[in-house]
Amino acid sequence: MTKRVDLNSDLGESFGAYTLGMDKEVLEIITSANIACGMHAGDPLVMAATVKMAVQNGTAIGAHPGYPDLQGFGRRNLAMSPGEVKDYVIYQVGALEAFARVQGKRLQHVKAHGAMYNMAAKDYKLALAIAEAVKAVNPDLILLALANSEMVRAAKDVGIKVAEEVFADRAYNPDGTLVARGTPGAMIHDRAVAIPRVVRMVTEGKVTAINGQDILIKADSICVHGDNPEAIDFVKEIRKALMEAGVSVEPLGNFI
Amino acid sequence: MTKRVDLNSDLGESFGAYTLGMDKEVLEIITSANIACGMHAGDPLVMAATVKMAVQNGTAIGAHPGYPDLQGFGRRNLAMSPGEVKDYVIYQVGALEAFARVQGKRLQHVKAHGAMYNMAAKDYKLALAIAEAVKAVNPDLILLALANSEMVRAAKDVGIKVAEEVFADRAYNPDGTLVARGTPGAMIHDRAVAIPRVVRMVTEGKVTAINGQDILIKADSICVHGDNPEAIDFVKEIRKALMEAGVSVEPLGNFI
Amino acid sequence: MTKRVDLNSDLGESFGAYTLGMDKEVLEIITSANIACGMHAGDPLVMAATVKMAVQNGTAIGAHPGYPDLQGFGRRNLAMSPGEVKDYVIYQVGALEAFARVQGKRLQHVKAHGAMYNMAAKDYKLALAIAEAVKAVNPDLILLALANSEMVRAAKDVGIKVAEEVFADRAYNPDGTLVARGTPGAMIHDRAVAIPRVVRMVTEGKVTAINGQDILIKADSICVHGDNPEAIDFVKEIRKALMEAGVSVEPLGNFI
Amino acid sequence: MTKRVDLNSDLGESFGAYTLGMDKEVLEIITSANIACGMHAGDPLVMAATVKMAVQNGTAIGAHPGYPDLQGFGRRNLAMSPGEVKDYVIYQVGALEAFARVQGKRLQHVKAHGAMYNMAAKDYKLALAIAEAVKAVNPDLILLALANSEMVRAAKDVGIKVAEEVFADRAYNPDGTLVARGTPGAMIHDRAVAIPRVVRMVTEGKVTAINGQDILIKADSICVHGDNPEAIDFVKEIRKALMEAGVSVEPLGNFI
Repeated sequence: MTKRVDLNSDLGESFGAYTLGMDKEVLEIITSANIACGMHAGDPLVMAATVKMAVQNGTAIGAHPGYPDLQGFGRRNLAMSPGEVKDYVIYQVGALEAFARVQGKRLQHVKAHGAMYNMAAKDYKLALAIAEAVKAVNPDLILLALANSEMVRAAKDVGIKVAEEVFADRAYNPDGTLVARGTPGAMIHDRAVAIPRVVRMVTEGKVTAINGQDILIKADSICVHGDNPEAIDFVKEIRKALMEAGVSVEPLGNFI
Repeated sequence: MTKRVDLNSDLGESFGAYTLGMDKEVLEIITSANIACGMHAGDPLVMAATVKMAVQNGTAIGAHPGYPDLQGFGRRNLAMSPGEVKDYVIYQVGALEAFARVQGKRLQHVKAHGAMYNMAAKDYKLALAIAEAVKAVNPDLILLALANSEMVRAAKDVGIKVAEEVFADRAYNPDGTLVARGTPGAMIHDRAVAIPRVVRMVTEGKVTAINGQDILIKADSICVHGDNPEAIDFVKEIRKALMEAGVSVEPLGNFI
Repeated sequence: MTKRVDLNSDLGESFGAYTLGMDKEVLEIITSANIACGMHAGDPLVMAATVKMAVQNGTAIGAHPGYPDLQGFGRRNLAMSPGEVKDYVIYQVGALEAFARVQGKRLQHVKAHGAMYNMAAKDYKLALAIAEAVKAVNPDLILLALANSEMVRAAKDVGIKVAEEVFADRAYNPDGTLVARGTPGAMIHDRAVAIPRVVRMVTEGKVTAINGQDILIKADSICVHGDNPEAIDFVKEIRKALMEAGVSVEPLGNFI
Repeated sequence: MTKRVDLNSDLGESFGAYTLGMDKEVLEIITSANIACGMHAGDPLVMAATVKMAVQNGTAIGAHPGYPDLQGFGRRNLAMSPGEVKDYVIYQVGALEAFARVQGKRLQHVKAHGAMYNMAAKDYKLALAIAEAVKAVNPDLILLALANSEMVRAAKDVGIKVAEEVFADRAYNPDGTLVARGTPGAMIHDRAVAIPRVVRMVTEGKVTAINGQDILIKADSICVHGDNPEAIDFVKEIRKALMEAGVSVEPLGNFI
């Protein structure tokens, strides 16, 4: 059976007069777009334009809810209770879903952003709040979650579909979690290392952890970036290597 | 045939630690709730709680989008273009609709708030932007609009359902528009005048304009307030007078 | 020598159409006002009005900076770096100081709000950022800080004046820190216990910790609340008890 | 006597993760910086960094207050009352002044931004509110205002210093006001026309209005832009032409 994998990227992060990201370029090479919902980035105009552009490119659309912290771009930990997180996710998914409907499309998935994503990866209660919010808004949505994280567990417990995502440029601990940024060796900068490594995650379901041990990992989607021409170029290389390895690059909705 | 009318009120206007309005009390006596969507008032927690409370009371739910101006409570004119207004309305209706869906309900209507309402009542292009947004999100929604306004015209042009609303405490110009606040005689403070007047709008479809002339008016819904105990009391009196006149007080969705 | 103590309270926490607190009533019985600066509460109009009212009452004015989290009222922990906190404090103190100057007055003090206060009480780096911000804006300002906290230490290290504040309704650990809310016995609800207890903190510099042991505490100011008539009444009782014990109730600036 | 003129530009318009403008480059060629104050653009970190950079370049610092409309970049008309505008200006000037003080500097001037500037240019009550705010915060500040506008009149009536600014790329009406954007001929795109034209405004105090008639104009400062390399280049050409004409390019504070 042909192996399949999704390429996802964060989009629609501009705001008013402020432009961020090479959305047009990255849309052409990914299969799923995580679109900001107006809290940590994005505004109604940006959301409308980004959803339209994704639809024109045939890219699957996902909501990318974050903390209400525009100045911090949703990257600062904020002590919201699980109940607060649940309502904030419902709000943001609902808002983005309306723009999808305006374009005659359905949402494919939800992926939490920044600090919300990182906190929920380790905090089961937050993860559960996100999974419950997704289920409440639309039980057909896929939760796109860090592989091996509490979010994966919560999605399964709640009974919604979940896709596990991996990173080409991050090291893994023996227990399958990400090595924290800042730790020596946490980032893999050498593309000659990163690319075969991510291909192996997809084709073999394995990755070499930071201690040298091989561990199991589920790679339904690869998180990529489109901030600058180099990043775009890196995605193209990953895509090419995947195809050469016989992997089919498709939106999550096709196989989850 | 029994005359029917709806009673609508703005709800869910609290924000974070700030509480506003007697939502619980007013919910019991109205038939349609216009719920703020987080831009001029309301936040995701307030929206979730207000929608839940409305559902428990059996009150029909509407989205109440406004300008993104919390400090001004959406009451200050803001020169957004029709395109901007359209996207802001789609965003807010989508967010509120998600909370309705979480409670297993559908939205009944959309009513613009404050300055957006007042500007669109006179500006056809803004009115059209709002009507198009409503249609794009969900063509079954009713636009609740000022009687005789550009919003009524725009809704008809766009082909969505429209309900016309009247005010018990406001004077009318001979052309059916509201006498501007601040003009002598613009406000009707005497309940002994206001109540039979609004009953007549519903039962006869007529109101005496400020120049003494009788004009035609369509009263599908009466806008009422729940800010304080006196306002609540006034609504009860209106409701009682309507029932005594044989009018059935029902949500818009029953008869529009 | 006559013992002296200050009574401080948070004011100016209204925002736009939202009203909070009994500012007028509490202003008459306190000696120092901590005025919100538009981030977690307050807006320019509220700040102008509150500063004016404080000046008319002869109450000393302080800036009350908080996290930029209006929906959470600045009570949710937010992972801002010390550098970010420093700039946010400079901004807020500067804004409030302008309103004081407009009224021909100088600021007396700065007190951090909510989560910023609580986090800085335990985190020396945050405390240092706040103390440095205060010194940079105006080295004559007093930092009003939780007794025995890291903020007291940071203010001393930086070389600015510091006042230590105590709570009438909170229990203390043997090391002088507050017993965390939620812990049994953390709150002292019985006024017959709370009032003599706080008088003793001022007159003897001692308080009985939660384990029964007497500890030393410096009570330059007592934090009081003006949210409701009962709170106002409690402040009046504290004030009366202090005066009966021969304590002079005066603004911090008189004795720090 | 040597003619003197100032070159001013808007700076510090970045926000959080969003970067805007070539501040470093433009700072080296202008004499006065209008720094955004966190309402329509800028945040405390950006303000701190921009003020520091301006001080290092020896550029005079001004506050650039705007409407609280980040998504609209302060360019959308907002119906704030004169009282509201006054308090919003006090707030923003105070905040920026604190950052100047931290760097051991004083503010030189205040210039309103975008819609606030455009509305106050024509509305004497708004202009008066701004002038009164400036005077209340610091009566030594210069108001930088559109030449021939209501802001100039208001500043004189209030008794504060005022500098009149001109635009190199805009046409003028015979009454000295700007030809509205969108009107044919409103923008002067040809640098060979624009540069001698602006030099003449400075050296002769005259400009040819759109109807061909020569009118008087006071050019204390020229508003320039630093959005892109071409804009920077244009400023350099203006500066060179001024110097060749024997004009001294200096900060406002030297000669107003």
